[in-house]
Amino acid sequence: MYRSHTNGELRIENVGQEVTLCGWVQKSRELGAMTFVDLRDRYGITQLVFGEEHIKTAKNLGREDVIQITGNVIERESKNKNIPTGEIEITVTELTVLNKSKTPPFTIENETDGGEELRMQYRYLDLRRKPLQNNLKLRHRLSIEIRKYLDNINFLEIETPYLIKSTPEGARDFVVPSRMNPNEFYALPQSPQTFKQLLMVSGYDRYYQIVRCFRDEDLRADRQPEFTQIDCEMAFVDQEDIFNTFEGMITHLFKTVKNIDLKGFPRIDYATAMKQYGSDKPDIRFGMTFNYITEETQNKGFNVFDQSEVVIALVAKDCSSFTRKQLDALTDFVKRPQIGAKGMVYVKYNEDGSFKSSVDKFYSQEDLKAWADKCDAKAGDLILVLSGDKTSTQKQMNELRLHLGNELGLRNPNEYAPLWVYDFPLLEWDEDNNRYHAMHHPFTSPKKEDLHLLETDPGKVRANAYDMVLNGVEVGGGSIRIHDKAVQSRMFDLLGFSKEDAQAQFGFLMNAFEYGAPPHGGIALGFDRLCALFGGQETIRDFIAFPKNNNGRDVMIDSPSPISTEQLDELNIDIKIKEEL
Amino acid sequence: MYRSHTNGELRIENVGQEVTLCGWVQKSRELGAMTFVDLRDRYGITQLVFGEEHIKTAKNLGREDVIQITGNVIERESKNKNIPTGEIEITVTELTVLNKSKTPPFTIENETDGGEELRMQYRYLDLRRKPLQNNLKLRHRLSIEIRKYLDNINFLEIETPYLIKSTPEGARDFVVPSRMNPNEFYALPQSPQTFKQLLMVSGYDRYYQIVRCFRDEDLRADRQPEFTQIDCEMAFVDQEDIFNTFEGMITHLFKTVKNIDLKGFPRIDYATAMKQYGSDKPDIRFGMTFNYITEETQNKGFNVFDQSEVVIALVAKDCSSFTRKQLDALTDFVKRPQIGAKGMVYVKYNEDGSFKSSVDKFYSQEDLKAWADKCDAKAGDLILVLSGDKTSTQKQMNELRLHLGNELGLRNPNEYAPLWVYDFPLLEWDEDNNRYHAMHHPFTSPKKEDLHLLETDPGKVRANAYDMVLNGVEVGGGSIRIHDKAVQSRMFDLLGFSKEDAQAQFGFLMNAFEYGAPPHGGIALGFDRLCALFGGQETIRDFIAFPKNNNGRDVMIDSPSPISTEQLDELNIDIKIKEEL
Repeated sequence: MYRSHTNGELRIENVGQEVTLCGWVQKSRELGAMTFVDLRDRYGITQLVFGEEHIKTAKNLGREDVIQITGNVIERESKNKNIPTGEIEITVTELTVLNKSKTPPFTIENETDGGEELRMQYRYLDLRRKPLQNNLKLRHRLSIEIRKYLDNINFLEIETPYLIKSTPEGARDFVVPSRMNPNEFYALPQSPQTFKQLLMVSGYDRYYQIVRCFRDEDLRADRQPEFTQIDCEMAFVDQEDIFNTFEGMITHLFKTVKNIDLKGFPRIDYATAMKQYGSDKPDIRFGMTFNYITEETQNKGFNVFDQSEVVIALVAKDCSSFTRKQLDALTDFVKRPQIGAKGMVYVKYNEDGSFKSSVDKFYSQEDLKAWADKCDAKAGDLILVLSGDKTSTQKQMNELRLHLGNELGLRNPNEYAPLWVYDFPLLEWDEDNNRYHAMHHPFTSPKKEDLHLLETDPGKVRANAYDMVLNGVEVGGGSIRIHDKAVQSRMFDLLGFSKEDAQAQFGFLMNAFEYGAPPHGGIALGFDRLCALFGGQETIRDFIAFPKNNNGRDVMIDSPSPISTEQLDELNIDIKIKEEL
Repeated sequence: MYRSHTNGELRIENVGQEVTLCGWVQKSRELGAMTFVDLRDRYGITQLVFGEEHIKTAKNLGREDVIQITGNVIERESKNKNIPTGEIEITVTELTVLNKSKTPPFTIENETDGGEELRMQYRYLDLRRKPLQNNLKLRHRLSIEIRKYLDNINFLEIETPYLIKSTPEGARDFVVPSRMNPNEFYALPQSPQTFKQLLMVSGYDRYYQIVRCFRDEDLRADRQPEFTQIDCEMAFVDQEDIFNTFEGMITHLFKTVKNIDLKGFPRIDYATAMKQYGSDKPDIRFGMTFNYITEETQNKGFNVFDQSEVVIALVAKDCSSFTRKQLDALTDFVKRPQIGAKGMVYVKYNEDGSFKSSVDKFYSQEDLKAWADKCDAKAGDLILVLSGDKTSTQKQMNELRLHLGNELGLRNPNEYAPLWVYDFPLLEWDEDNNRYHAMHHPFTSPKKEDLHLLETDPGKVRANAYDMVLNGVEVGGGSIRIHDKAVQSRMFDLLGFSKEDAQAQFGFLMNAFEYGAPPHGGIALGFDRLCALFGGQETIRDFIAFPKNNNGRDVMIDSPSPISTEQLDELNIDIKIKEEL
């Protein structure tokens, strides 16, 4: 027993007790013949007082030294109201240095002086900082509450294998050469999709798993080659059952973890989301939905609008006083290559009821009034207009809307607005490969009422597929699955699989469908992302204990790394090109 | 909403209600104009009654068809007391066949007619059987209770990476070629050992994770290439703290999951375990500890004993009436090549106080009485004796003891006897490679009082290492770790690492030890094994949803399998020998 208490635990009631504490030296300061030391552990900070008898050792204590002390709890003269232990301190009678520390390469404080790369290299020191400890505690708490909620409603957590089979559908697999089966490879799962469906065929009824998944993709700023998913599946359900179950889960999490009552869980179909927000994951913490003023803008001599498939306007409330500079900045924003608009038209609806626009040459005050009416704009508002082909313009307008939301402070990180987006298209056309891709995945069922379109106009078929969106971020997605062999087989045809390929890769699933597969569906939520959202942050990296960098490297352990020739020989593989190092 | 209730839920109180149920046809039988169908789901079985209006469809229902019915709950005339729903039945008013089933390749019953291989191939059907459903439910329940216990005492579940670094120490790694870092590989973790130690350095204080681990070993009957571990680590603890924490966990699991109060958690040091049981994982549900009668047997002309390092006897209570045939069978048992004894001596201590032995030629009645006294044997007992060099004889005697325990019914699967074995040796000598191996792993700390032996007689050094044993099965093992760079570095020397290799492979850990590493220790428990023990079974395979066979294959999905040339090219690897197929 190294300690009687933690450093977060002692209160005024403990005064008079002899205690033994362990921890790290956060800081020390001398005051006359006394030395004060802040002793830190995961649970808090306790102030130690060293008198003359320990002055020499105490003076030698450095930051991050690990010590054990015994002493007496006394009431503090100058109390610190900011910490729970702030009413007491310990007069130390015994001191043992358990382990000295070298000076850390950066300070272990809430705001550190260490750069990103240095902190990744010394991740074990960065993880000592309170913001990161809070993130990992939050992650733990969320996982506990997720399991509590799901266990309460009869979900079983069932572990599925990590060494599975490579399939060309979807993203790129990480593979694992098999030593016992030369020339053959396992793949690491991109998700346990087929296994959870088989568990439904097996009658497990309600399955979940908090599970690692792997994708060998080129990493964008906030992607990790391994990530964690809350993977769920239910039998004998329709979309409504899934919505109720998992909005219940999110509501439970907000209540138990953040003590927030969610205001509601609106639902919007994909087509409407695209029309109103230009996005399948709209941030509905603020309004500013799209207004289509195509008709109102035609045949007034403004070629740009006349030649546009759509003209879309949005209203920035009370922003008619925007300066030239502000308007130029917005124009610059939409003209950035990653957004790609050719230009932006603005209309100021002045407080006095008059209009001032960048296209006054073409449109009269009455014309502009008609726009404003269509947009439900009021005097004092600013109307921003983009035009072009529908898909691009919606996308650009979505970016502009989100940008304005940020600028106007409408995206409050302490406000949480979830929603369901449903009726996604079943397929999307892949121009490069001249074939259809499954928008969700090949196991997603088409909507019954669209089944007749499968043969005539597959791109129009809607799927029983849905996303859960929170504050403009997709936190999860799922679908009601196909449970019929014939439909599944037709689906593989549409995706360009030969009968042989479909059988070789997914034969086990299609066979399973012949032995009494129940209707079923599910959802998978990105756990890393969910943690970041609950933590009010945008990047997932600091919610993962040991993340990889954008090259897929763990710079702390220096991995990946070369392996020995013996290992390669045993695995029956060879490195192809011997590169000069 | 496909159903209003599950098939395990309706009771006499529900009589009169209209309900909708879904499930699988377990069996159907006709009785006059009526058809009775047992409808099954995970939750139970409900009896359906089809009257004349549905007789045609009902007659066509086959086993494992998935159906949905609506009907009225009525009281059954002949009640079935064996099932919770046995007091009611449903008169069906509507029937929908959701999915027909082909005839399954084996029966979906508690005792099935399917062979091992067929059941593995159709695992999704085997998983429908109740014994397997019970196993996976038990596994879920255990995981929930483990987390509840650990969460309650401030453990944080922290996920560690699956794509890590290959190290030659320990078992063989599975490796994963990195596409983004050509010629380099990740390894899948054999355990999160170094990461959990780093988390202690980071101050997380109490860590756990229920985590998948991977070992590319040739598979024995009951090993899996991927297995699940309950991985735990604590800071500022000694062995006593670990014992208290984790015997508390096991006690909690037995109480909450099986409603069993464990009688105690004895502790025995490694040397004593080897001496008394010839095993570091003794089954203490029964006695029969070893008696060393080496002295008592010498110089009576029996060369075999005279030339033996040890002569060990055990007493089979009340077995003096064993027949010649029974004794021969025991001799055959110990002479089996995998056990390897040259022979076995028996002494019958007859009810009348006389002795009959297989070595009467050499030993007088007084001699045999002296043996019996040393062994504390009584009239009516049987004494069995093996001899030879100490290590082999202990091992053989252990096998004989366990075998006899089975034969005599002393190993009751419903009795649970846990214990701790501690003070394991730090190192073991590897004859093949002429060097020491870490018996637990290279991060295990030597006992302070044995430190002086490190330089003079390393094989004698005991470690702060311990195993948790339950009914003769090792369910977990752990140690108090090294937290000092110098000691860790010395340990790597002893294990034959060059300074460079040690630095390249474990430099990050030794560096971490320089920045204030706290004393720490932990344990890892085999979760698959623990589930099997709680289920009262010996093999782990049926406690894993989708296990692999002894060749590391998943025969259901047919994995591992060849991958495409494009995949190999992208990964910059090649298959070495193009085998003829």
